[in-house]
Amino acid sequence: MDFEYIEGGVTAALGFKASGIHCGIRKNRDKKDLALLASDRPATAAAIYTKNLVIGAPCTVTKQHLENNTARAVICNSGIANTCAADGIEKANRMCELTASALGISADDVLVASTGVIGPSIDMTPIEKGMPSLVAGLSAGGHTDAAQAIMTTDTVKKEFALQFTLGGKTCTMGGMAKGSGMIAPNMATMLCFITTDAAIDGAMLKSALAEVADDTFNMVSVDGDTSTNDMTVILANGAAGNPIIDTKNEDYQTFTAALYRLCEKFCRALAADGEGATKLLECRVSGGATKRDARLVAKSVINSSLLKAAMFGADANWGRVLCAIGYSGAAVNVQGVRVEFSSAAGRVHVCENGAGIEFSEDSAKKVLSQNEIVIDITLQDGDAFAKAWGCNLTYDYVRINGDYRS
Amino acid sequence: MDFEYIEGGVTAALGFKASGIHCGIRKNRDKKDLALLASDRPATAAAIYTKNLVIGAPCTVTKQHLENNTARAVICNSGIANTCAADGIEKANRMCELTASALGISADDVLVASTGVIGPSIDMTPIEKGMPSLVAGLSAGGHTDAAQAIMTTDTVKKEFALQFTLGGKTCTMGGMAKGSGMIAPNMATMLCFITTDAAIDGAMLKSALAEVADDTFNMVSVDGDTSTNDMTVILANGAAGNPIIDTKNEDYQTFTAALYRLCEKFCRALAADGEGATKLLECRVSGGATKRDARLVAKSVINSSLLKAAMFGADANWGRVLCAIGYSGAAVNVQGVRVEFSSAAGRVHVCENGAGIEFSEDSAKKVLSQNEIVIDITLQDGDAFAKAWGCNLTYDYVRINGDYRS
Repeated sequence: MDFEYIEGGVTAALGFKASGIHCGIRKNRDKKDLALLASDRPATAAAIYTKNLVIGAPCTVTKQHLENNTARAVICNSGIANTCAADGIEKANRMCELTASALGISADDVLVASTGVIGPSIDMTPIEKGMPSLVAGLSAGGHTDAAQAIMTTDTVKKEFALQFTLGGKTCTMGGMAKGSGMIAPNMATMLCFITTDAAIDGAMLKSALAEVADDTFNMVSVDGDTSTNDMTVILANGAAGNPIIDTKNEDYQTFTAALYRLCEKFCRALAADGEGATKLLECRVSGGATKRDARLVAKSVINSSLLKAAMFGADANWGRVLCAIGYSGAAVNVQGVRVEFSSAAGRVHVCENGAGIEFSEDSAKKVLSQNEIVIDITLQDGDAFAKAWGCNLTYDYVRINGDYRS
Repeated sequence: MDFEYIEGGVTAALGFKASGIHCGIRKNRDKKDLALLASDRPATAAAIYTKNLVIGAPCTVTKQHLENNTARAVICNSGIANTCAADGIEKANRMCELTASALGISADDVLVASTGVIGPSIDMTPIEKGMPSLVAGLSAGGHTDAAQAIMTTDTVKKEFALQFTLGGKTCTMGGMAKGSGMIAPNMATMLCFITTDAAIDGAMLKSALAEVADDTFNMVSVDGDTSTNDMTVILANGAAGNPIIDTKNEDYQTFTAALYRLCEKFCRALAADGEGATKLLECRVSGGATKRDARLVAKSVINSSLLKAAMFGADANWGRVLCAIGYSGAAVNVQGVRVEFSSAAGRVHVCENGAGIEFSEDSAKKVLSQNEIVIDITLQDGDAFAKAWGCNLTYDYVRINGDYRS
């Protein structure tokens, strides 16, 4: 598939506008806390949600509003997660109503998301007061304000966009995400909002999102804590004028491939900006017996606190990789495992057939001192492949999470 | 059951001797690195091992030597795990042979354990050279030297003993353990060696150990990394002269209860001495639908990096408890969850029916500033109970594990 990354974010696709303001949910006036995204026409929409049993009220309300697979707008606040609060559903519905009324659309066509501390009830007053200026600010140039408004402990905004061709028409897909822990700090919930002007029906959009999410969002871990508010939403408004995708044809494959490219970008950005993180880790597993086994191995390695701490120390402690493979739950012939570390500084082969081999500690130190590290695991069990993304464990992770609420 | 904790450790029971020396596996001469434990008569023995697919060679050899449920001695080194080394089995067997020959017993009656870095081949020279003085040092007073010799990143030795009565005879049970991460840092493997002079047959001993381990060792977590070398061994030499336990009678219940008391002591000590830890966390779950659900909830909470970091900061962030309950995999009615934190400084009730309630942040801070914290979770799903032990996540965990090998 041909595609090209372009500048921009959630408004890169035709017909989408966004804005972001500080309305007062957060005390810090310099931190925007309310974002709005709107399509100028009805859009097909799909979402995936956290699998946590304790589920945020906004996820529940969004799920209801997506029963008809269509939406026009997304309202999202940061600061408070609106989860485990007795009035959560009522407040999430109220956020949709306020937005719908300001935009002149139906509340059913508004999706809602929240991220922040679990527990507190969310005050509607700042949202009510801020709504007029939020709506007035909607523009194609508002994507950056929106991307900033959904951030919590993130240190950088996360926006990407790309273009591809369907039935001779140029289609654009873009998005914004937040999450500085993922799969997921319950205060730094992972949220991702994607828009596209491609025409695709609800069933195909759902299917593409689920397929891609299994290989992208579900393969990222900052700390193994699955959030209560995780949500990825995609809106497709058809403004590009391509023949609508309503079956798993070649256009569907192109669309899914484009979605994968975009989501992979977000995953790398989310992991690299993991709380306290200074290094992005990518674990690639090949030769797995099944896709499931390869995924289990990749995620187990990326999740190991010990390996994450070793990467912090640029320590080629490959025994921790073997250990994490061993307890992953995957069916693996441990006598067939090869492990290599690589980065911009080179590649070092540390384990073959499940046992250590001689390697230069100096070279290993150089390789592991870079800020993007790849851990290549080659199994001899089949031909399945999987990739997962994570980050190192640092003092700052402990500092950030030692007193998040204050 | 009546029982009494007494001074001593792995040699508290009649007929057991121990010793510990620095033989040279470690460079630091001030750190003992080789321990020996011996019974003056054949003992019934049982063990449980790590469930990691990557399993240390000493575990494999010990398992073979326990096929007949009897043993006379245990040899254990620290510094190198003897895992993922091509010559691991050969070296583990050699350690048994050296010990057997020095003691004049069969190598089949020697159990072997190792803890330390995964990967390197273990050099037999210091073990061969040290064996005469190790054997010469065997005494009832040698328990502390042995307990010190098995330590890695542990900051305190872990020895406990207790007495109870079976058939009118006083029986003693004692042990030593190491593990500063558990379930488990692959370099700070959990090892526990227990001895008793009670008479019990192999099948009953195995059953008692498995039963107790599910509620004790399998409920401790420092960092969620299941080690490759975890092992708990129990030797019962019958020197107390009680009627042999060969069925699940009242004596079996007494024996199992005593074993539980001893293992619980070890678990609390292991968690409190978790790498970098400054606080012991105990999570008690009551009202679970099943024992399995209660255990899943307790372990999930104890394992949450976010909760562990919050405890470091004495932050009553109960939302993280709810979040960890939600992703635990247990069947839980989240609308029925109550959460309370308590310690020597008092008790604070923070969540009722799955939602936050008003509480004094000042009192909470005081409660959570103690070094032993209890997290009480009350469910409304049944009457199952479980307890798990863990520790807080601190800067020192990252420091210790950032460069363990050097």
